[in-house]
Amino acid sequence: MSDVDPFSRGCAWIQGEYVPIREARIPIMDAGFSRSDVTYDVVAVWGGAFFRLDAHLDRFERSMSRLGLELGVDRDEIATILHDCVRRSGLREAYVDMIATRGWPARGGRDPWTFKNQFYAYAIPYLWVVEPEEQERGSHLVIAKDTVRIPEASVDPTVKNFHWGDLTRGAFEAHERGGTVSALPDVDGNLTEGPGFNVFLVIDGEIHTPASGVLLGITRRTVLELAEEHGLSTHVRAIPVADAARAEEAFLTSTAGGVMPVTAIDGRTLGDGTPGAVTSRLRQAYWDAHSDARWITPVAYDA
Amino acid sequence: MSDVDPFSRGCAWIQGEYVPIREARIPIMDAGFSRSDVTYDVVAVWGGAFFRLDAHLDRFERSMSRLGLELGVDRDEIATILHDCVRRSGLREAYVDMIATRGWPARGGRDPWTFKNQFYAYAIPYLWVVEPEEQERGSHLVIAKDTVRIPEASVDPTVKNFHWGDLTRGAFEAHERGGTVSALPDVDGNLTEGPGFNVFLVIDGEIHTPASGVLLGITRRTVLELAEEHGLSTHVRAIPVADAARAEEAFLTSTAGGVMPVTAIDGRTLGDGTPGAVTSRLRQAYWDAHSDARWITPVAYDA
Repeated sequence: MSDVDPFSRGCAWIQGEYVPIREARIPIMDAGFSRSDVTYDVVAVWGGAFFRLDAHLDRFERSMSRLGLELGVDRDEIATILHDCVRRSGLREAYVDMIATRGWPARGGRDPWTFKNQFYAYAIPYLWVVEPEEQERGSHLVIAKDTVRIPEASVDPTVKNFHWGDLTRGAFEAHERGGTVSALPDVDGNLTEGPGFNVFLVIDGEIHTPASGVLLGITRRTVLELAEEHGLSTHVRAIPVADAARAEEAFLTSTAGGVMPVTAIDGRTLGDGTPGAVTSRLRQAYWDAHSDARWITPVAYDA
Repeated sequence: MSDVDPFSRGCAWIQGEYVPIREARIPIMDAGFSRSDVTYDVVAVWGGAFFRLDAHLDRFERSMSRLGLELGVDRDEIATILHDCVRRSGLREAYVDMIATRGWPARGGRDPWTFKNQFYAYAIPYLWVVEPEEQERGSHLVIAKDTVRIPEASVDPTVKNFHWGDLTRGAFEAHERGGTVSALPDVDGNLTEGPGFNVFLVIDGEIHTPASGVLLGITRRTVLELAEEHGLSTHVRAIPVADAARAEEAFLTSTAGGVMPVTAIDGRTLGDGTPGAVTSRLRQAYWDAHSDARWITPVAYDA
């Protein structure tokens, strides 16, 4: 793929046309922007194949249904558009985003149930929530004290959304306190999630992750499934923030980065300060799964 | 202004260029969209003049400061761009939006403090949160039961923002329950605000509006000032939702619609079901104030 190919940095699908990512723009009047009335999903392409595409499409369809969004494209057409974005970019490792917005009024007025909903998609080079170099040494997780996660009674966290004001505030606080990644508590003082990732603790060799108030991440689910296959005990439960002080290991999960080791929490070094044994085992299993036929869908690239 | 002038439906300022509103688009990668990392302000033009432009610019500057956003344009340049958007559109009554977003990475990475922030603006024909015809008969306000306003501990409501997931849910619920407008309680059961407006109750001839958990609206402030000038008592306080049952009048305030009468709340008709005397007096005073020299800034239209 030549550097002069304008699609080589990514390809987007915008209102029926494939455009280079640099030219990908949405109308400023789209309520997906002006009211953040939008849901989305991100699936990874690794080694030329989608990973768990069906699981991502299932969740995307559920999210749209929960918001009452109806696109003019069905599931098969969405999959075709995602394939085409990747194929046209030529990327073998890609971050592939599908976005459904409320759109704009079909006939004037401001009632969202009358709007013409919109679908956008793009494929860009694979994004790392934590860069691979930092993953090798492990991240320093700071759990915010000044901000709580938006509660489920306000915005449903299982409908993947762009309401990141709280997560962004938490990221600023973590940065000021010397952290490299951040997570938020809920109003009851339980651990939730960070910007773009779920959080796991390893306590007495067993795996713990919050049950509610979080996105039901596909990578989170994959890790829980792989842990069980490896004979590890898993606990999906409410986790008081204080439990973080008992963790001997911790890690983050995201489609954009996989299983990302944490080697310090709130200034406390975990174990010997290198990625832990359980974390490393699951991280290896996660990437190994990317050649597992049950979970991959090869992209039909141009010859 | 000819119908064929592409600017007559509105004019936007996008990355240094004035474009017709139909062509106004923002990059899909702007974190103002993908993380709703954005603040904005809306000022009205009425009868060819901005109303309380300085108050809106003050609030916009405060909002940007709170989010740590720094634009490449200063206050005077922002004012010039707003004037130019209106002048080029030729609109005598306009809804003028100024928007500051986090933008996108200046040098790669995903840390918001490294992003290049962006400024967008546009002027479009004046928007009514409640259409004038509905204002004449009064709106039916429904206070949501199924959704609470995002708390201040998560997202600061005094920094005008696009985190409208809760407000949109409330609007759907109100629509299903027969309402025409909606407002949300907070987690403690106190009244907050609706999508794009503050809420006022009139109880025993005195005026009540929530003290916190709401945008400090410029129209809200204007109404409080006008009420005092008219010798009306005002109470800015925590208002339990149950107090709505004691109101003999109610109204909404917004830059996009002014003082908007409410004649029913949760199915209960207020007074005789027509806009109340106090409401009508303040509504008249509000529009009269649009010729008050202390608050208006004429637009320099083309000859």
